[in-house]
Amino acid sequence: MRIIGVDPGLVSCGIGVIETVPGEIHPREGLKYIYSGVIKPPRGDLARRLLYLHENLVTFIRDQRAEVMAVEDQFFGKNVQTAFKTGQARGAALLAAARCGLHTNLYPPARVKLAVTGNGRASKEQVRHMVGQILNLQSLPQSLDCSDALAVAVCRALSGEKTPSTP
Amino acid sequence: MRIIGVDPGLVSCGIGVIETVPGEIHPREGLKYIYSGVIKPPRGDLARRLLYLHENLVTFIRDQRAEVMAVEDQFFGKNVQTAFKTGQARGAALLAAARCGLHTNLYPPARVKLAVTGNGRASKEQVRHMVGQILNLQSLPQSLDCSDALAVAVCRALSGEKTPSTP
Repeated sequence: MRIIGVDPGLVSCGIGVIETVPGEIHPREGLKYIYSGVIKPPRGDLARRLLYLHENLVTFIRDQRAEVMAVEDQFFGKNVQTAFKTGQARGAALLAAARCGLHTNLYPPARVKLAVTGNGRASKEQVRHMVGQILNLQSLPQSLDCSDALAVAVCRALSGEKTPSTP
Repeated sequence: MRIIGVDPGLVSCGIGVIETVPGEIHPREGLKYIYSGVIKPPRGDLARRLLYLHENLVTFIRDQRAEVMAVEDQFFGKNVQTAFKTGQARGAALLAAARCGLHTNLYPPARVKLAVTGNGRASKEQVRHMVGQILNLQSLPQSLDCSDALAVAVCRALSGEKTPSTP
């Protein structure tokens, strides 16, 4: 099963794709890294930036043949206006999943950290390090946006949730 | 020019359409009410609710032949998680505008209230009352979501901003 993890943001949106390989005894050994990167909408009109993000995600989901999307389900911070802006970017990401017929899973940030590092309050650097270990990467994910996106995809893979037969 | 005002929300999204009639000496006399209503996405999966909202807005923009979209540009409240959720709904609305090639204008809540009532701190009921007056409605807009959506459209009409020739 191909999972796309998304770390939504309007300045830089992290994306990470992994594949679960069935039949491994230890779930972590059945995880295969496929891709990670970021989408950076050009500056300017807010609606056009959202459209850029959305359309690129749709293309990306199709090109990478992703089957489910995993996203963090809470805003992690205190600033109301930042939460509002980040919410818009997450809306654009969830819409891309729904338009492509993908099922979406949402996980609290602490659950993602726990799944990847064993500590629900781990730092982003620790998450990045462990994502590299779990996915047997030669080098660390290129940025924290990438490692956060891969981490939520790993969390989905390890959660044991069944893939829905209908999206 | 047809203006669609949107009051984004996932439970109930207010929409209001007005038309500006050029040539009136007093700008307020050149405003014509066209439509108001709400979109209520069915409960369930968040991504599907956003898609429902988005697709209905796209249909609505096309059916009503709206040319510009006006939306409030800030979240008015203190709760971070509510801001995050409302942000998602606004993202879905702005994406609908961008997909239809509409230009979008964003106004702070206080500016909308000032334009409609003369008081930047007016209550929602006062806004509803004045929207009814300005648009010569026989009865008040059916809900506060509708009057808020009509109010931001009225604010756009009275702002004197030129319609962009290219979206």
